[in-house]
Amino acid sequence: MNLLVVGTVAYDSVKTPFGEEASVLGGSATYFSVAASYFTEVGVLAVVGEDFKREDLATFEKHHIDTSGLETALGGTTFHWEGEYGYDLNDPKTLKTDLNVLAEFNPRLPEACRDVPYLFLANIDPRVQLQVLDQVKAPHLVAADTMNYWIEGNREDLLKVLRRIDILTINESEARLLAQEFNLVKAARRIISWGPRTVIIKRGEYGVLEISENSIFAMPAYPLDSVRDPTGAGDSFAGGFMGFLANGHGLEPPQSVRQAILAGSVMASLNVQDFSLRRLSALTQDDIRERHRAFQQLTVVESLD
Amino acid sequence: MNLLVVGTVAYDSVKTPFGEEASVLGGSATYFSVAASYFTEVGVLAVVGEDFKREDLATFEKHHIDTSGLETALGGTTFHWEGEYGYDLNDPKTLKTDLNVLAEFNPRLPEACRDVPYLFLANIDPRVQLQVLDQVKAPHLVAADTMNYWIEGNREDLLKVLRRIDILTINESEARLLAQEFNLVKAARRIISWGPRTVIIKRGEYGVLEISENSIFAMPAYPLDSVRDPTGAGDSFAGGFMGFLANGHGLEPPQSVRQAILAGSVMASLNVQDFSLRRLSALTQDDIRERHRAFQQLTVVESLD
Repeated sequence: MNLLVVGTVAYDSVKTPFGEEASVLGGSATYFSVAASYFTEVGVLAVVGEDFKREDLATFEKHHIDTSGLETALGGTTFHWEGEYGYDLNDPKTLKTDLNVLAEFNPRLPEACRDVPYLFLANIDPRVQLQVLDQVKAPHLVAADTMNYWIEGNREDLLKVLRRIDILTINESEARLLAQEFNLVKAARRIISWGPRTVIIKRGEYGVLEISENSIFAMPAYPLDSVRDPTGAGDSFAGGFMGFLANGHGLEPPQSVRQAILAGSVMASLNVQDFSLRRLSALTQDDIRERHRAFQQLTVVESLD
Repeated sequence: MNLLVVGTVAYDSVKTPFGEEASVLGGSATYFSVAASYFTEVGVLAVVGEDFKREDLATFEKHHIDTSGLETALGGTTFHWEGEYGYDLNDPKTLKTDLNVLAEFNPRLPEACRDVPYLFLANIDPRVQLQVLDQVKAPHLVAADTMNYWIEGNREDLLKVLRRIDILTINESEARLLAQEFNLVKAARRIISWGPRTVIIKRGEYGVLEISENSIFAMPAYPLDSVRDPTGAGDSFAGGFMGFLANGHGLEPPQSVRQAILAGSVMASLNVQDFSLRRLSALTQDDIRERHRAFQQLTVVESLD
C-alpha cells in the first residue's frame, strides 16, 4: 500500500436542483480512495455500522482498495449526512448529521499500514488525526483537511496536527477562519508558519490555489455545462492529488505538485457530474486522459513572440 | 487612433476597508483608456461637466490619450459615483449615483474617430452604445460591457447591441441574469447565439473565463497580498485586453485572445493595488513586464513526461 486515508465512510442523503438521492454511498475516505485508486494502491482507515451494505463494500473491492483498516462497529449504524444544495452548488445546507459509529471511532492501524509512505488525514476530529499520526512510522508525505467545525471547536488539537503535516487542503472560507485573516495570501502564509509547507485552498467552482513559501499556483476548475452533485469534490480532488504524488512523483520538484493538482482537479470535475460515486467509480483511463487534456487546454497561453 | 472607448469619465467617492477617497478621478472610459494607452493609441468619447479639473485632464494627456471626443457640457457637473466595499472587495454597495451631465449624453464622433478599427462600448446606456455603433464606419472589432441596470431596464436595446458586437465582457452574475441561466457555460452559449462570438466573464478575484464557440479558457486573477480598491478592475482589464488586440494582434488566431486576456488581467491586477488611477497611471513598462511574468508562472503546468 502506497497511500492511506483516514476519514469517513458514510451514507449521504443529498438534494440538488438536478436530483435527489437518499442514503447513497459517500464519505471523505470513500471519495478519496476511489479517486486515488486510478493512480496508486490505496487503503482506507474508517468505521462503518452493521447496516453497511455488501454492494457498497464491493465498490471498494472493485477498485482494489485495501479495506483491512475498515472496521465494522458491532451493533452500530453507519455515519449519515443529509444536505441540500442550491443552484450555486456551493456550501450545502446541512439538514442532519448522525455521527452514529463515528462518535466512538478510535482508529487502530493494521500492522501492514504503519509503514505507509503517503498519508491523508481527511476532514475528521483532529484528535483522530493525531491518533493516526501517532501510529504511522515515518511517512514520506502527510496531507490533511479540516473544516470550520474543528477550527472553532478544537483549535488546539488542530494546531498540533498542523505542526506534523506537509500539506493542508482547506476551503477558502475555512482558510480565512483558521488564519483569522481575510486576504488569502496572508492567510496561507500564516498557516505555513504553523507547520505545513504548502496550503492548497479549495475554491469550489473557481478551482484551487496552491501557496508555498516560494510559489503560488492557481488552477481553475473546468467549466462544465452540467454539474449534478458537488458532494465529494474536495475529497476526490485530494484523492487524485495524493494518488498522483504517491505514484512515484513525490513532492519535488515543484512541478510535480502542479501536476498533482491537475490530477486532483480532473478527478473532482469528473465526480461532480453525477450523484454519489456513480461516475467516479465507473471511469476508464480514457475518461481521465480526455479530461486531463481538456484541463491542459483550459489555461494554456502560448507566447506570441 | 487605433482604439476608441465610449463610456464615463467620473468623480468617484470610494470607501474600502483599506482607505477612503472623495471625488477622485474614475469612470469606465478613464480606466479603460489609461490601461490601453500602454499598448496602443487610444481615444475617449465621453462627457464631463465644467467642474472637471485641469489636473485630471492632464492624466489623459500624460498618456497621449486622444480627448477630441471628450465633450464638456456647459453648465453641467461631472458624473459622480459613491460606493463602499466590504472585506470581500466584491460588488460594492452603491451609496449614491449622480448622473449629472451623463443624463443628456448624446455622443457625436469627431470625423477622425469614425474610421477607428477597434471600438469598446463600456458599460453605459445601450441607446448610447447604439448611437456610437451608428457613427463608426467599419470597425474591425467591437467589444462591449453592460450591467444589471441595463439588462433589467433596457433589454431590448441591449439585445440590439449584442447583434452588432464581436465580444461581450460581463460580470458573472450579470451573465446569468442576461441569459436567464445559472450554468455559466450554457449562459455564455446563449449569449453567443444572440450575436457576439466570444463572451468574457469577469469573476473578480477569481479571474476571467472566456467562452467562444470552440474554445474555453480560464485565467485566474493573480492572488495579491494587498488589494486596496477594486474600482475600475473590469475596465482596466478591458483596456489591457483591447489595447493588446488593437496593437496589431487582431482576434485571430485564438491564442492572441488568450494573450490579450493575460494583458488585461495584468492591468486589472496592477490597478487594484491603489485607489483611483494612482497606480494605473504611474506604471512603467517594467512594472507591466514583471506582473506579466508572474501571471505566466501562476498557471503553468509543465508536462512530466
